[in-house]
This record gives sequence, structure tokens and C-alpha cells, in this order.
Amino acid sequence: MSTPEIERLVDLLAKLPGLGPRSARRAALHLIKRPGQIMQPLAEALSGVVAAIRTCSACGNIDSVDPCRICDDVERDRGVICVIEDVADLWALERTASYGGLYHVLGGTLSALDGVGPDDLRIGKLLDRARSEAVTEVILATNATVAGQTTAHYITERLADSNVKISRLAHGVPVGGELDYLDDGTLTAALKSRREV
Amino acid sequence: MSTPEIERLVDLLAKLPGLGPRSARRAALHLIKRPGQIMQPLAEALSGVVAAIRTCSACGNIDSVDPCRICDDVERDRGVICVIEDVADLWALERTASYGGLYHVLGGTLSALDGVGPDDLRIGKLLDRARSEAVTEVILATNATVAGQTTAHYITERLADSNVKISRLAHGVPVGGELDYLDDGTLTAALKSRREV
Repeated sequence: MSTPEIERLVDLLAKLPGLGPRSARRAALHLIKRPGQIMQPLAEALSGVVAAIRTCSACGNIDSVDPCRICDDVERDRGVICVIEDVADLWALERTASYGGLYHVLGGTLSALDGVGPDDLRIGKLLDRARSEAVTEVILATNATVAGQTTAHYITERLADSNVKISRLAHGVPVGGELDYLDDGTLTAALKSRREV
Repeated sequence: MSTPEIERLVDLLAKLPGLGPRSARRAALHLIKRPGQIMQPLAEALSGVVAAIRTCSACGNIDSVDPCRICDDVERDRGVICVIEDVADLWALERTASYGGLYHVLGGTLSALDGVGPDDLRIGKLLDRARSEAVTEVILATNATVAGQTTAHYITERLADSNVKISRLAHGVPVGGELDYLDDGTLTAALKSRREV
């Protein structure tokens, strides 16, 4: 019994990750009750992002400039490339403020099941970058899932003939984690990678 | 390390119920990856709703016309008014397709704590409507919470001197519900309101 305009809004909101049909309805109503405070600003923010955003032709990052501000930053170490699946992973790493190199966003993982091959990801471009003179290390920071690790393995093989150093993120006990709640795989990895104190 | 445009979008999305800062970030990225399919349409849908939507001056419903299509529908029983807290409750009742009367949206509940008094809700207007010749019954369908029931009680008292019949939704075992999982209050209510078969 709501209007076609509202139904359309609910349908679109329901496509967002984390919102189902029911929560999309609640979100729509929340917006409708606050036209000036949220709904209009959100409409403008969306249009603004559509207009402003581009994908970095070098690393696949999303920014309002191309090349992105990370690739363009002369302060950053141009000898290290951190390979990640998604822009969200780049944001997560940047939040730690503990990495000063460049990135390479693959845009997903290899998946025979979903028909995603090397040509569907930004892998060829990565191989070109990794083989350039300036690059000394490639850090494989794909997710610790089967798909992520398969993709990391494939990249390792393709770079085997190059001189670049290849590393991957450490596995281990999460900071603040309790052993009792950890899965066996993580605990085994933490034990294997133990360090002298 | 994302752009100011994206940060603003994330901040606005995080204000929606059901989305926290983290899921807002995921939602924003989901949108950015699909500018044509979702982001631009969503921007337009929001602007469209801002422009189209008004509040029904009779019942408080949200629609693109005032009075709303429910108040304007000659097929509906104009002798019964169902009182609800929110437009979401109206939508829920309409989805059941089992009610053919009119509605009255209060816009919340009385709350001494939050400083919400009768004048902050659409209660005066309800009393006027309930006292009109045509109305024979007022169904109190506020939530079965303390605030909802307090509000229902207040309305009952204010209408005590009128001739209108006042009813409330039945309490009982939800259809498909298992007794073992029900709270004591509901079970007690279901027992008290038992019906001969």
C-alpha cells in the first residue's frame, strides 16, 4: 500500500549487502521521515560519487583521480606492491597505517566454478608491474580462503622466473584472541611460525 | 585513504538502521562497483521520493497524494479506525489483506523519559476523528510493549466519555509458534483468552 516511488527505493536498498527486504523497508521509512537530514543528502552524495569516482589505471584502486593518490604519492615505497582482492582490503590495510608501499587490486579471485580466469582479474598488469626494475617485493595479501590462497599460488608460480621477492601475510593467533576459540588450522599455523622471544 | 566523496557516502549510509560503520563501508563499495545498475538509480529513486512523498493530513500515512489513497478509498469501511504507532505498522497490516477500515498513525508512543507527550503525537486529531458520527470502532494496534500499551491506555481513557467501541489486538500464541519457546506473559495471555472449540 506504499507508493511505486517507495517500492522502487525499497527494491534498490534491498540490493545492498547487509540489507534484506525487511530491513530495506525500515531503512526506506527512516529516510522518508528525514527528507532534509538524510534522504536528500544521500541522493546528492550518490550522484557526487558517480560523477567523481574513477578506477586507478595503475593499481585498480578507486579514487577521484587517476593515477590514484597512493600511486601518485612520492613518499611511498615504490619498491613494494601489496596484492589484494578488493578495494575494501586496501582500505583495511590503510587504516592500520602500518604499510607504506603501493597496492595492486586484483578485483576478485580465480574461480573455476564461477568462470573467473586470470584474464578476468588484474593479474597480467600485476605481472608487468612486478617485473619492472623498481619493484623488489610483492606481498600477497589475498584472503586466507581457498580461493584467495589459490590465486596467491597462481601469482607465485607466474612470478617464479622473476627476481622479485614474494611474501605473504603471517598466519597466527589474532591479537587478543583466545586459543580455546581458535580453529585448528590457525593454531597449527601459529605453532609452526612460532618465534623465539 | 578513500575520497571525501566516498567518506560522506559511508557516513550517510551508516545512519540507516541495520547498517553500522563497517557494513556502510561494504555497501558503499558495492554501490561504487555498480554505478549504472544501482548507484545512479538509487540516487534518482531518493530524489524521486523526496519530491513525491507527502504525509496524509487525515491519518498520518505516507503517500504521494493527500489525503492518502486509503483515506480516499470509498470501498473501505469508514466506521473503523485502526490506531498504529508507525507507517511501517500500517504496511504490515496492509500486507495481511485482512483489514478493510481506515488507519490513524500516531507517529510514536508517549514517553515521559524522551519527553514525548500527547501533543507530540497525532492524538488530538485521533480523538476528533473517533468522536465523529461515522466512526463506530477504534482498534488500538500499538505495539505490545510498555510504551505502546501505555499509549493505548491513555487513548482509552481519553475516549471513555465517547460512544465509540474500543478494541485491541488479541494476545496469544503466534501461528506456528511452539509453547516451549514462548515467554510466560504471552503464554498466560493465550491461556486467559482461550476459546471454546
